[in-house]
Amino acid sequence: MKKPTDVKREILRFGNGNLDLFEDTIVTEYPVTVIINGKEFVTIVCTPEYIEDMVVGFLASEGIIRKYEDIEDIWVEEKDGFVHVKVNNINPYYQNFQNKRYFTSCCGSSRQGFVFVNDAMTAKKMKSIRVTLSVDDCFELMNNLQTSATTFHNTGGVHNCALGDLNGMVLGRMDIGRHNALDKIFGYCLRNQIFVGDKILIFSGRISSEILLKVAKIGCELVLSKSAPTELALQLAEQLGITTVGFIRSHSLNVYTHPERIII
Amino acid sequence: MKKPTDVKREILRFGNGNLDLFEDTIVTEYPVTVIINGKEFVTIVCTPEYIEDMVVGFLASEGIIRKYEDIEDIWVEEKDGFVHVKVNNINPYYQNFQNKRYFTSCCGSSRQGFVFVNDAMTAKKMKSIRVTLSVDDCFELMNNLQTSATTFHNTGGVHNCALGDLNGMVLGRMDIGRHNALDKIFGYCLRNQIFVGDKILIFSGRISSEILLKVAKIGCELVLSKSAPTELALQLAEQLGITTVGFIRSHSLNVYTHPERIII
Repeated sequence: MKKPTDVKREILRFGNGNLDLFEDTIVTEYPVTVIINGKEFVTIVCTPEYIEDMVVGFLASEGIIRKYEDIEDIWVEEKDGFVHVKVNNINPYYQNFQNKRYFTSCCGSSRQGFVFVNDAMTAKKMKSIRVTLSVDDCFELMNNLQTSATTFHNTGGVHNCALGDLNGMVLGRMDIGRHNALDKIFGYCLRNQIFVGDKILIFSGRISSEILLKVAKIGCELVLSKSAPTELALQLAEQLGITTVGFIRSHSLNVYTHPERIII
Repeated sequence: MKKPTDVKREILRFGNGNLDLFEDTIVTEYPVTVIINGKEFVTIVCTPEYIEDMVVGFLASEGIIRKYEDIEDIWVEEKDGFVHVKVNNINPYYQNFQNKRYFTSCCGSSRQGFVFVNDAMTAKKMKSIRVTLSVDDCFELMNNLQTSATTFHNTGGVHNCALGDLNGMVLGRMDIGRHNALDKIFGYCLRNQIFVGDKILIFSGRISSEILLKVAKIGCELVLSKSAPTELALQLAEQLGITTVGFIRSHSLNVYTHPERIII
């Protein structure tokens, strides 16, 4: 049985001077435990849809697999929230560098700003300009993301992200966790061999260094956000050749890095 | 040398039909590696202030220490972002149950909703009503949090939280990470023996199950948020005796659980 992504709940709402009973819609959280080759690996709390895609995206993003073909089998035990993965080929570097800090002082300045070694190995550098967007395209793509965000409008409790191109949104996903939403996109693209290099990533949340690295791992040249970036994310974006556009509101936006892809 | 919490950066801003150079303020991220008894434990990316408090709050929240006195010494190596902690007494249950799922099906229904065993052991249940708030108190405390959030106003990139009482805000903290902001409050209270039982936690972010559990670990009976809760967080709040108030906007709010502490 599919788990619901939101549920009804009776609450008290204050408005116009009174506290009144009200039937509200609340977003759910669902713990998913990933079992790799029979061994418990991690528990992710998420919105219960596109779970297999999320787990594939997570494994690729963490550098545990290097390509989708490294996964021999994947199946979900819906009732207890287990995802079993049979991996042929766990990346040998993964175990060595799991959560190991990347110290720029001893590793040269070529990958300045990286916090973790695995990220420095997994994030792709963009070497060309495949896509250019007008400022109006940016407004339109963000508008598409927001109008399609039904669960957000009903609950206020999820983040939304999407892949888009010059014709609009291609694929939209949501999750209570910002990272999960991006992993759902990443996993879908890997499993369905979607070419991402000419697409744009559109995101409702802030662009931290972790989010920027996920964009680089997915392989997009451009990321559009409604919210703020961090300085570390912008340093990484400069270095990885990614265009970051933030604070996209109705008539204004900020272009932070690689403005060569944005035209008026 | 103290690291800055925000920096200036030249960006392109679009407004009134033009893309113009603009000097913006961007929030920083700073990796902190926690070394426990000489061994690398975890790297936390955070806003570089109140680092020791954050690490103490993190260790207590994760159940690695059971009381502040378990820490014999703590010191920060600012330059490379190391925090060294000498712990006398690592909680023996911690190693056994680290990230282990709590399966309600085999553990009875008394702590329904808990995802991790450590959380079920660390979260405190509120057994009394020490504080009652009027709806106007809720609006005023949220207003205090928002007007004091200088870095948020300048950068849009951080979350804010505070401890308050009927006289207003007692202690305010901010961080790029929602969890870190709460850990900074928790650590400060532990280090300075602040009695939390009669205080209110005020928070800018969404109330997920992890956030609700942190509120319970800190020991507050009431949590006020500008944003949405999740269903799992509300189930935990019901069980732990915590009043949750969300979507606090200028003239409306929602009371989700234990409304006996809220009066008109």
